[in-house]
Amino acid sequence: MGRAVGRLCASPARGRARRRRVARGGGPAVSRAAAATHLWVDGRPADLALLSTLQTNYGHLSTMQVRGGAVQGFERHVSRLQSANLALFGRALPAARIRSELAAALQAAAIDDATLRVSVGAPDVAAVERGDAVEVVLLVALSPPRTAPTTPQRLQSCRCVRPLAHLKHLATLPLLHARRVARAAGFDDALLVDAADQVTEGALWNIGFVDADGGIVWPEGDALRGVTEGLLRAGLDAAGCAQRVASIPRSACSAFRSAFACNSSGLWPLASVDGRAFAGDPAVPDVLQAILAAVPWDPLGR
Amino acid sequence: MGRAVGRLCASPARGRARRRRVARGGGPAVSRAAAATHLWVDGRPADLALLSTLQTNYGHLSTMQVRGGAVQGFERHVSRLQSANLALFGRALPAARIRSELAAALQAAAIDDATLRVSVGAPDVAAVERGDAVEVVLLVALSPPRTAPTTPQRLQSCRCVRPLAHLKHLATLPLLHARRVARAAGFDDALLVDAADQVTEGALWNIGFVDADGGIVWPEGDALRGVTEGLLRAGLDAAGCAQRVASIPRSACSAFRSAFACNSSGLWPLASVDGRAFAGDPAVPDVLQAILAAVPWDPLGR
Repeated sequence: MGRAVGRLCASPARGRARRRRVARGGGPAVSRAAAATHLWVDGRPADLALLSTLQTNYGHLSTMQVRGGAVQGFERHVSRLQSANLALFGRALPAARIRSELAAALQAAAIDDATLRVSVGAPDVAAVERGDAVEVVLLVALSPPRTAPTTPQRLQSCRCVRPLAHLKHLATLPLLHARRVARAAGFDDALLVDAADQVTEGALWNIGFVDADGGIVWPEGDALRGVTEGLLRAGLDAAGCAQRVASIPRSACSAFRSAFACNSSGLWPLASVDGRAFAGDPAVPDVLQAILAAVPWDPLGR
Repeated sequence: MGRAVGRLCASPARGRARRRRVARGGGPAVSRAAAATHLWVDGRPADLALLSTLQTNYGHLSTMQVRGGAVQGFERHVSRLQSANLALFGRALPAARIRSELAAALQAAAIDDATLRVSVGAPDVAAVERGDAVEVVLLVALSPPRTAPTTPQRLQSCRCVRPLAHLKHLATLPLLHARRVARAAGFDDALLVDAADQVTEGALWNIGFVDADGGIVWPEGDALRGVTEGLLRAGLDAAGCAQRVASIPRSACSAFRSAFACNSSGLWPLASVDGRAFAGDPAVPDVLQAILAAVPWDPLGR
């Protein structure tokens, strides 16, 4: 990070072709998509007894888009689940287990395209409280596929600092509440700022800015560094494109040429913060679209 | 709050008699206690489809102890659920509905003594996100009765500020994590301090201090003002006992004569913060025990 060599650049062809290959050639002729939310544990429908023990909402998660049974940046999702598991449950979570349990859910549900949310919890609540290293359960929720918004989103800022912000944990209520409050006020989504009024992240996504020279600027601060942001940063680095990390006061947002949002649903343009539009037209830089399109889709069931 | 007239005083007899009456006379000859966690919705066991829609953990809760089918300070639990419902779902939650749904769960489960946790969520996740006023579901978890710890608890302080701290919402992970970290380090529980290093609350309970004169001191700051703390404050006021609210730096804790914890499980003594014991012996003031014992037990099924 922090290298700033050259201008933005693009070469999306290879990645797009790979995505088409997975979506068209890898799966069955007719893609089978999730139509409602279903919960799975190790390839079996979750049962009431288990869900009852998981009601304390102590755990972590990752959400990914599945197309043709494959996921972009899957190794990054695995790494995040593993580090969060150590932090919250004090125990290793083997990558092979994550992969096989997710694949088992997709196979049992006979689904190729979905939003897959895997949340990790521990049925032994008392052991969690004692501070023991505890055995976990992977609860897989399969729901309809999601895509990024297409219209530029108007943001309302919200003072909100998440405890343990570096972990993607289950205490998501403040994020959902910030989004709800923003939408009730006529905005599209919420932008979080910390106690010093610095931008940190979006409600359920990361934010990046584009400066006057076309360089990408990521906000400094306590935030979840998402899988898609990680893919974009790595791609910018590999391509030798300009990017940097900087402290961004809420009041300074509109001085940027534009800004964009990203999460597992993709990339989308941002229009304004608290009614103040960015200096240029809302758009996601082509280079970022190209980087994301070039990320391989990793088949889960292999 | 803030009136400081007279010294601590006690007159527990009436309340104790009332509690015995409810526990012995109000219910059946043999009390039936919850033995594991069961989930109920409006007097029926919760089903998988509903639990699947509530997986976003957006909602609020209250936890109470049920003895002989009755709860202390039930009206305060109702008020809290009602104000949280307006804040999170934009809709009134009638008191009569809360009472009847809780009673229906106890009756269907044939249980008199339990820990009752009612969590309120909305199956229509999209409507929540849009910012609409939304219809809610009351999910009642019945688990074994709990009592307060009897040994003085050794606390480890933890820097943690909850977003929307005034609401008892479902984002409880930071609290459970603070407790887990404290226990793994050999302490009994976690004490939360804010960004300015001021004491706010315990992991899942409120804290009060006792000064050299025997007066009660409640910490100022962003915290959930619990039902039991509210009952104690009202009781101290009614009895004309000394209490005040003050900013309490983490480093100043051990200067107090003692400190106590309270939640729906009751009252219990605290021994130390970060290994530094309080100036006097750990004990809960008799006046507080008396006030809590005098609080009527409200039968839910009436």
